Amino acid sequence: MGSTGSIGRQTLDVVRALPEEFKVAALAGGRNIELLAEQMEDQPHVRTRLLNNQIRFASLEEMASLPDVDRVVVATSGKAGLSPCLSALRHGKSVALANKEVLVMAGELVMLEADKHGAAILPVDSEHSALWQCLRGEGNRVSRLILTASGGPFRKRSKADLAGVTAREALKHPTWAMGPKVTVDSATLMNKGMEIIEAHWLFRIAFDDIQVVVHPESIVHSMVEFVDGSVKAQLSYPDMRLPIQYALSFPERLPGHFVPRMDFAKTHNLTFEQPDWEVFPCPRLAVEAAKHGGTYPTALCAADEVAVGLFLADRIGFLDIPRIIEATLARHQNRSGPTIEDIEDADTVARAEAMEIAGVAP
Amino acid sequence: MGSTGSIGRQTLDVVRALPEEFKVAALAGGRNIELLAEQMEDQPHVRTRLLNNQIRFASLEEMASLPDVDRVVVATSGKAGLSPCLSALRHGKSVALANKEVLVMAGELVMLEADKHGAAILPVDSEHSALWQCLRGEGNRVSRLILTASGGPFRKRSKADLAGVTAREALKHPTWAMGPKVTVDSATLMNKGMEIIEAHWLFRIAFDDIQVVVHPESIVHSMVEFVDGSVKAQLSYPDMRLPIQYALSFPERLPGHFVPRMDFAKTHNLTFEQPDWEVFPCPRLAVEAAKHGGTYPTALCAADEVAVGLFLADRIGFLDIPRIIEATLARHQNRSGPTIEDIEDADTVARAEAMEIAGVAP
Repeated sequence: MGSTGSIGRQTLDVVRALPEEFKVAALAGGRNIELLAEQMEDQPHVRTRLLNNQIRFASLEEMASLPDVDRVVVATSGKAGLSPCLSALRHGKSVALANKEVLVMAGELVMLEADKHGAAILPVDSEHSALWQCLRGEGNRVSRLILTASGGPFRKRSKADLAGVTAREALKHPTWAMGPKVTVDSATLMNKGMEIIEAHWLFRIAFDDIQVVVHPESIVHSMVEFVDGSVKAQLSYPDMRLPIQYALSFPERLPGHFVPRMDFAKTHNLTFEQPDWEVFPCPRLAVEAAKHGGTYPTALCAADEVAVGLFLADRIGFLDIPRIIEATLARHQNRSGPTIEDIEDADTVARAEAMEIAGVAP
Repeated sequence: MGSTGSIGRQTLDVVRALPEEFKVAALAGGRNIELLAEQMEDQPHVRTRLLNNQIRFASLEEMASLPDVDRVVVATSGKAGLSPCLSALRHGKSVALANKEVLVMAGELVMLEADKHGAAILPVDSEHSALWQCLRGEGNRVSRLILTASGGPFRKRSKADLAGVTAREALKHPTWAMGPKVTVDSATLMNKGMEIIEAHWLFRIAFDDIQVVVHPESIVHSMVEFVDGSVKAQLSYPDMRLPIQYALSFPERLPGHFVPRMDFAKTHNLTFEQPDWEVFPCPRLAVEAAKHGGTYPTALCAADEVAVGLFLADRIGFLDIPRIIEATLARHQNRSGPTIEDIEDADTVARAEAMEIAGVAP
């Protein structure tokens, strides 16, 4: 799901590298129909009848119910991932989840569905894959999750510096090549706020036991501290095809074809520093929303998606992103224990609010 | 076994901190009878009759066969650890092994005994504990073990610099407080050579897939690379009580009382560099001996123990240590598939050879 996006294309790289291990049963893309058609021709096992349908998320039910589908890669971005993720879980398929917003918007609901249908959610995000790898074989003796952040392109900038930055500058990520929405979320550090919420749901860890540390080299992808004080870290040169492959092959590990082996013989310097939460308020907003619970995180995601969209279109400034999110959350009418309809409603309302706050016609 | 040494004393720190979890059934020390008597008074469950015996390794059979002993900590140094380790394994007790030489001298024999009696060997060494923790829950999909080395007190020194260094200088280890033999082995990097051999036996990894990387901060204790290119590392501030506790509590993790939590908020800098194998030839000698197999590693350990002892007594220079070891190995008459008697013989002969090469009366 989302095969024409950045994660989707890299998922197909992994599949092509390990043709004996993986077969693609179905593909779905949102916009780039030309590339989707190419991808389908390239994958002999894809049911081409899906291409003949118009590509709509409605058809994802059908895709998720195919008997030869074991695992569904949800690599859409934003709100679009929620429905396919829930469909796949309800059909008992394990979900390799690359879409941050799914668990942020609807973590409680999604985990309930996963438990109910005995379907696993396997993280694709490099940070959550790292946590998941570090937790492998360990019991429930975690004292802290330590999410690493590259710090994005605006690390060490002051608030005044950030007022004038453009979308073009925000898209120059120092270490990772990702889609535009995620890249801007990485520049605001909103991605870390969302990752805290995701980690909370994936690994059932309290928000206050999840910490963010800036690590500009993006080699340590995250760490887990255990009750005895021991810390485990997962490392590699940054390449999303490694966590994608791990989510596809788990519980196996298969030979890697993309990431060069770590060369510690050359001098390597891994550095860590505290993020400046005054300059980058988004993670605080995210954790506050998540602690309020209910539909607050949905409103957070909706407001972020609107604000990032406007920023990418050069219609608002960089510092307007947290401002719009904060104001949207302040207006939010919460519903606790939300149903999928409550989440859809909260999303619609928050989008409209965010547009209004931004002073942009919807 | 070896309760009055550095590891032994720290093992008792762990036991005192977790009195509900651990009881000491027996203690053995080699030289410091006064401290041993104190330790025995402090530990209510120790069978004091052992104190009334003269402390000899012969009594270790009795200690290892006590029905209330689950786990035997072998924290003697040098050749002295082999017999108690074998005794414990033959009684089906798991062995928390802090003595490097046991597996170096007699890895094949010791692993055979462990397998035969279904007894586990649990590493206490910080490096092997790190590897063991990183391997936890993973299948047999390892591509490389990466042992970290602090580099010791003489890191970045030239060969000419090292000619005149004294035992006093060698004992000033930058990051770890350890016993004198281990500290000198750390200065020559012989400890890394021995750790490669240990890791080979503990984790059944080929010598050529075990790499040493200098990491002066001693925070990353070692790493494992898997076939997919993912690397897992174990980190903590250096304190032997963490790996000791892990070896005592495994498979559980219990609350840690000694090691401060890693503070990544303060800037941390973790660096890695390649060791200079020209200046520090001991690891090469160790791996060559291990690849020859048979009694070669025994001769290596014997020669090292003699040479380090002479260096600590200011009777030879620092560069004489590898010279004596290399010359002893060159004279060695190998026996393959050695029995315990072959190992004892090889040890005796190699010690005499090493003394002779050193030009010292035995």
